Amino acid sequence: MAVNLKKPDNKNLHPIKGIVLGTSEANLKNEDTRDLLIIYLTEGATVSGVFTINQFCAAPVIVARNNLKLSNKIRALIINTGSANAGMGDTGLKDSLEICKFLAAKLKIKKDEVLPFSTGEIMKPLPVEKIKKAIPSAINDFQEDNWLLSAESIMTTDTVPKATSRKIKIQDQIVTITGISKGSGMIHPNMATMLAFIGMDVNISQNMQDKLIKEVTQETFNCISVDGDTSTNDSFVLISTNKVKNKVITENTNDYKTLKAAVLELAKELAQAIIRDGEGASKFITIKVIGALTIDEAREVAMSVACSSLVKTAFFASDANLGRVLSAIGACQLNNFDIKDINISLNDILFAEGGGKSKTFHEDIIQTEMKKSEISLIISLKRGNEQVVIWTSDLSHEYVKINSEYRT
Amino acid sequence: MAVNLKKPDNKNLHPIKGIVLGTSEANLKNEDTRDLLIIYLTEGATVSGVFTINQFCAAPVIVARNNLKLSNKIRALIINTGSANAGMGDTGLKDSLEICKFLAAKLKIKKDEVLPFSTGEIMKPLPVEKIKKAIPSAINDFQEDNWLLSAESIMTTDTVPKATSRKIKIQDQIVTITGISKGSGMIHPNMATMLAFIGMDVNISQNMQDKLIKEVTQETFNCISVDGDTSTNDSFVLISTNKVKNKVITENTNDYKTLKAAVLELAKELAQAIIRDGEGASKFITIKVIGALTIDEAREVAMSVACSSLVKTAFFASDANLGRVLSAIGACQLNNFDIKDINISLNDILFAEGGGKSKTFHEDIIQTEMKKSEISLIISLKRGNEQVVIWTSDLSHEYVKINSEYRT
Repeated sequence: MAVNLKKPDNKNLHPIKGIVLGTSEANLKNEDTRDLLIIYLTEGATVSGVFTINQFCAAPVIVARNNLKLSNKIRALIINTGSANAGMGDTGLKDSLEICKFLAAKLKIKKDEVLPFSTGEIMKPLPVEKIKKAIPSAINDFQEDNWLLSAESIMTTDTVPKATSRKIKIQDQIVTITGISKGSGMIHPNMATMLAFIGMDVNISQNMQDKLIKEVTQETFNCISVDGDTSTNDSFVLISTNKVKNKVITENTNDYKTLKAAVLELAKELAQAIIRDGEGASKFITIKVIGALTIDEAREVAMSVACSSLVKTAFFASDANLGRVLSAIGACQLNNFDIKDINISLNDILFAEGGGKSKTFHEDIIQTEMKKSEISLIISLKRGNEQVVIWTSDLSHEYVKINSEYRT
Repeated sequence: MAVNLKKPDNKNLHPIKGIVLGTSEANLKNEDTRDLLIIYLTEGATVSGVFTINQFCAAPVIVARNNLKLSNKIRALIINTGSANAGMGDTGLKDSLEICKFLAAKLKIKKDEVLPFSTGEIMKPLPVEKIKKAIPSAINDFQEDNWLLSAESIMTTDTVPKATSRKIKIQDQIVTITGISKGSGMIHPNMATMLAFIGMDVNISQNMQDKLIKEVTQETFNCISVDGDTSTNDSFVLISTNKVKNKVITENTNDYKTLKAAVLELAKELAQAIIRDGEGASKFITIKVIGALTIDEAREVAMSVACSSLVKTAFFASDANLGRVLSAIGACQLNNFDIKDINISLNDILFAEGGGKSKTFHEDIIQTEMKKSEISLIISLKRGNEQVVIWTSDLSHEYVKINSEYRT
């Protein structure tokens, strides 16, 4: 059902020197499938993370955030599916710490050097014993060239594994960047039920990498919405093994800009893949708001349209019932806003201006565009110079089916 | 499909002295059905209105709001279905004014004394000629005892007409209150695609009636959400013909309180009927947030839960996946908020406390409650003394079907 999204080929996913990955079957879901991932990092790797702002954040998020603060020597990440270990009170915290301790002992590292991640059902206890039992075989599986299976092992309602890779040049050195993500529903800033891990071998300082992850998140993982629901477990981790011999990036130089452009492109692909694989998605919809007074205003308008169930069902039906877009914009209480200033186009065809249909509006033409699987809405507010791009999916029968039968 | 909602019996809908209603078939929808309503008021009636705050509000809303300001001598209301006359730019305004002018001439009143209302598809031209042609037969149909057919004539995706009536005593005089509403989707404060008209014969001043309508709206029509979408056309009009010989209500007396209690109860019934008939609804869900610091905070939490697609699909599936409720609460960014303080009960059974499942949680018991058609969630924040009650429905296959096939 995913919209123009193919399973990646492992040969296009370049290994990162200093990162090995191992998966195993811990029997965490009702399927015979790899469901546990361990990522093991070389000593001296730089690790940065951003996490959900949901106040009911999961126990692993609390532990991971803490360990990132305590230590700048993260050596391992462990990701389980099947249980989100969220809404579990103190038990959840104890369970997450227990996993870190167990893995640390096996790898002969400190427990604070482990970051735990969980995804799956909320309010379901973490299957600690099952995970512990499966850790040794995941460790046995450690290898550099293991990104595709890793992407598969963290899938939940995902139908396609999400992974991509780039090589760029910095100071005549080849820098490799490879990342995976998962997520399909409960997708909304900040940051939805999604996990993303991107590894690099570039030599970069902790400060600059922390800046990089924030800047990239803002334009990628914080710009996607499937169903308006934010999640308890969202995490995005950026790792650099610093193995490349470039002079360490410590400032906002051209090298930083080159690196940022590449990471941004890669993260955008991973973020869009989540929407393309959005629960029940039959359309990939890009909403660009231009001419806003502020970024926040642009974002408010884009999200109001992206989150409107009526807009989303109209796109699912390929129905040119675009008054619903106007209504979703009007629902934003912008100050001194004149609806007559708004222009809206769909796949570059102007359909609304002057507070109503455009003079050139032809239902047949719009109807033809609505049937396409890639839809681009551009909303021009003519108020200022700020803009934002948001990606979303439609609302289909399949979404309701998936989410009403999730546990059965 | 409506949840515990029956078609009212016309004999329980008491006529209001000074209000006659007439309907006719203007052929505005693809059905043989009454689709146009005119409400004609005695001279000296007091009329108050509240309207959508959607900035893309429809032309009739602009005209009605204007005429209410210009004149305190409203004599007629005209309501058409089939087209919302919204997102039509200047043409929409011209069309609405044309209908007012035409009706005014027929009734020998001034055009400013007419309030127009439209409901139906956005960005579809108002069928002015069809409406004009059907006005005379609606006028011929004028009668006091005509509330049920009136409720039927304003239905769109509604499956059940919504009307109710009360008699109360004020100063030993019998006061009668009768109202109708419509609405089924695009339902969200402020005030959703809904129309409501309540008539009374009580003697009340314009100021006090304006106060009354605002107070009542806040606790009724602004407390319902089907799909989080606000609409371009929502209007609620309260009319008093002042025919009862009570001493005019001009202050916040006990008489005002008695009247308010009755109107509140009646409006609540009409508001809840909209949710019970919510598009695709299979459950009627009451969300009460207590112990909030402020009303706004209580409302934010209640609406976050009410609008979560994941919560709504879980209710549709009768699935005790209640972690989704925690996540929706956590998505509200409340200051100094400790999730451990929260208690949540479902149909009076405590299921969450201390940041996780309650000690007494039994999935079987909750599962049994989830299967009921009436669900009550009580969320206690333990932060203050404010509270709010919101009504919503679940998200079903039928909702997607209705909204993706609305125009086909």
